[in-house]
Amino acid sequence: MKKNLTVAVDAMSGDKGTGVIVEAVRQVLSQRPDATLLLVGDPQEINRHIGDKPLPEGRAQIVEASEVVTMEDTVAIALRNKKKSSMRIAIDQVKSGRAAACVSSGNTSALMAVSKFVLKTVPGIDRPAISTTIPALNGHTHMLDLGANVDCSAEHLFQFAAMGSILAEAIDAKAHPSVGLLNIGSEDIKGNVQVKDAAALLADSNLNYIGFVEGNEIYTERADVVVCDGFVGNVSLKTSEGVAHMVSHYLKEEFMRTPVNKLIGLLAKPVLRSFGNRIDPRRYNGASLLGLKGVVIKSHGGADALAFANAINIALLEIDNDVPSMITERMSQSVSSIA
Amino acid sequence: MKKNLTVAVDAMSGDKGTGVIVEAVRQVLSQRPDATLLLVGDPQEINRHIGDKPLPEGRAQIVEASEVVTMEDTVAIALRNKKKSSMRIAIDQVKSGRAAACVSSGNTSALMAVSKFVLKTVPGIDRPAISTTIPALNGHTHMLDLGANVDCSAEHLFQFAAMGSILAEAIDAKAHPSVGLLNIGSEDIKGNVQVKDAAALLADSNLNYIGFVEGNEIYTERADVVVCDGFVGNVSLKTSEGVAHMVSHYLKEEFMRTPVNKLIGLLAKPVLRSFGNRIDPRRYNGASLLGLKGVVIKSHGGADALAFANAINIALLEIDNDVPSMITERMSQSVSSIA
Repeated sequence: MKKNLTVAVDAMSGDKGTGVIVEAVRQVLSQRPDATLLLVGDPQEINRHIGDKPLPEGRAQIVEASEVVTMEDTVAIALRNKKKSSMRIAIDQVKSGRAAACVSSGNTSALMAVSKFVLKTVPGIDRPAISTTIPALNGHTHMLDLGANVDCSAEHLFQFAAMGSILAEAIDAKAHPSVGLLNIGSEDIKGNVQVKDAAALLADSNLNYIGFVEGNEIYTERADVVVCDGFVGNVSLKTSEGVAHMVSHYLKEEFMRTPVNKLIGLLAKPVLRSFGNRIDPRRYNGASLLGLKGVVIKSHGGADALAFANAINIALLEIDNDVPSMITERMSQSVSSIA
Repeated sequence: MKKNLTVAVDAMSGDKGTGVIVEAVRQVLSQRPDATLLLVGDPQEINRHIGDKPLPEGRAQIVEASEVVTMEDTVAIALRNKKKSSMRIAIDQVKSGRAAACVSSGNTSALMAVSKFVLKTVPGIDRPAISTTIPALNGHTHMLDLGANVDCSAEHLFQFAAMGSILAEAIDAKAHPSVGLLNIGSEDIKGNVQVKDAAALLADSNLNYIGFVEGNEIYTERADVVVCDGFVGNVSLKTSEGVAHMVSHYLKEEFMRTPVNKLIGLLAKPVLRSFGNRIDPRRYNGASLLGLKGVVIKSHGGADALAFANAINIALLEIDNDVPSMITERMSQSVSSIA
C-alpha cells in the first residue's frame, strides 16, 4: 500500500505569522517531491503570502479554517469554543485520514489537549508525552517528557520510556536503543519515589534500560533515550537554551572587545559560522506528541521558515517510519505479555 | 568585636587528593592576609604536600583526623562510624567556634547530614538547602536548592526563597533582591501544586517576589534568586554543565577541522582563552549549605587548586557578610511576625 505522505500544517498559529509557514512549505515541497502539504487557515491570508509564486500544483492545498487558537487561550476555550480553528482543523485532517500528520506552532497545552481529544491515545498509554531530539557529543538523544505532564507516576515514566525506545528504534534504525532515567545521581538510593519505582519497572522490562543518567549526560549520548517527568524535562530543555544563548553571547562579546579581536573575528567568521550552525536551535525545532493515534508535531512559537520546515520534516520522518503504528503494535504486545 | 576569619578545610576528601587542597590553601593565604586556615586530615599526608615550602606561620594549622568519608559511604556510615573523619572534624571546628566556616569536597549527602547533625539548622528552617552562584548575561543568579531536598513542600520552597534572598542581600549588597520561582511557564495555571502553593506564600510575604521564571531565564538574571526543589535544581545545574561542555567541544572541533582553521585558531587563541575563562566552571566552584548555624561550603569533588581556592573564598565571603547570623535574625523576625 502506498503511504500517505500528506502533512496538515497549521498556517495561522505561531508568533511570526503565515508568511514564514508558506515559506517553510515551499522549502519542504522542493526538498520532498513525494510529500503533499495542506495549509490550514484563512485562504485569503495564505494566498496573500503565496503571492505570485504559486506552490506546486496539487501538492499544496488550502484547507479553510476561520478561527485561531491564541497563546492566551485556555485549553477549555481551544477545545469547546474554537472548533473551526486552524489547529483543530489541522488535527481533524489526521483523524479523517486525509493527512498522516499535522504540525502547529500554537499553544502547547491546547495542541496537546485537542490532539488527545480528537485523535485519542494509543491503548496502553495513559498520557501522551512531548519528545524532542537533543544534540549530543557523539550523536543525539531523544528526551521526554518535555512539559505535557508535570506530575508523573512510575507507570507514566515507564510508558514514556517504552515510547521513546520505539521512537529511537524507528527513526534512528537502532535495535534496542538504550534508555536512561534522568536522576540526580547514579546510585540506587538517589532520587524521588517515582523515579526509584520507575527504575524497578524498567529493570524488569524488555527495554534496554541502562540505569540513571544525570543532567550533563543528556549531552554525552550516554543513553539513546532519556526519560523524565514534564516539569524536570521542560526546565532542563529551557536551561539548555539559556546556557547556549549566554555562551554564544560571551563568544561574540570577546570577538568584539578590541579592534584586534574584531579583525581576528573577521578572519574567524567562517569557522564561527560553522560553529553557530551546529548549535543553531532551529535545526532541532519540532517536538513530537507521542502516544497519539497519529503524528502531531509542535513547532516552537517563534520558529522562522527554516525552523518550521524542520518541524515538517520531522513529521515526514515519523510517517516514513510508521511511528504511531509501531507504538500501537508494541504497546498491545506489552499489554498482552503482562496479561 | 574582631571577626573570626578562620576556615576549616577538609584536606582528605575530593578526587584529586590533598596536594590540590594544600595548593589552594597557599593561594588563599597569599590573597587574604587576614584569614587563618585549618587543614584537617592526616598530618603526615598534609606535611608531605607542604614539603619544603612552609605555609605562613600561625595562619595555617594542621588539625589531625584519622578517617576519611569516601564517595561511596552512606550517610549512616558517615554519621555513626566516622566520627574521626576529616569531614566531621572540620565541621566540629565550626561547632566549637574555633573556625567560622568549613569547606569540603566530600560526598554531598554525607556533608549535609553531618553538618545538620553537628551544627543544627537555624530556627524556622526545616531543611538546609544547597545554593550556588550561576553566571548570567548581566551578572549572576543565586539558585537553590541544588540537590539536598528531592521532594519539597510549598513551605520548604518558601524557606529556600527567604534564605536565598538574605544570601543575595548579604553577598551582593543589594536591597530587596528579586526572587523568582522556577516553573515551566509564566502563567498562573502552570506548574505543580507545590510550586503554585509556594507562589501564593511568596506573593503574601515581604520578599521581592517577581513570579515564575523559566529555565532559560536563570541565565538572563531576570531574578537575583531562583528557587526550585533539589531534583529540578540538580538536573538544571548538571544540564548546564553538559551544554557548556558540548558547546566548548564543538568550538574546539571547528577550529581544528582544517589546516586553515587551525591557523585562524592560533591567531584567535587569546580571544578564545579569554572566552574560556568566562565560562570556566572552576570560577563558580563552591556551593553553600544554607540554613545551618555556621558556614559550610561544598566544593566539587573534582576541584583543582584554583577551584578549591574559590570555594574557600566563598566561605570567607559568607563570614565577611555574616550570612548565618543574618539568616538566624531574619527567620526569627519572620517567625515572630507570623505568630
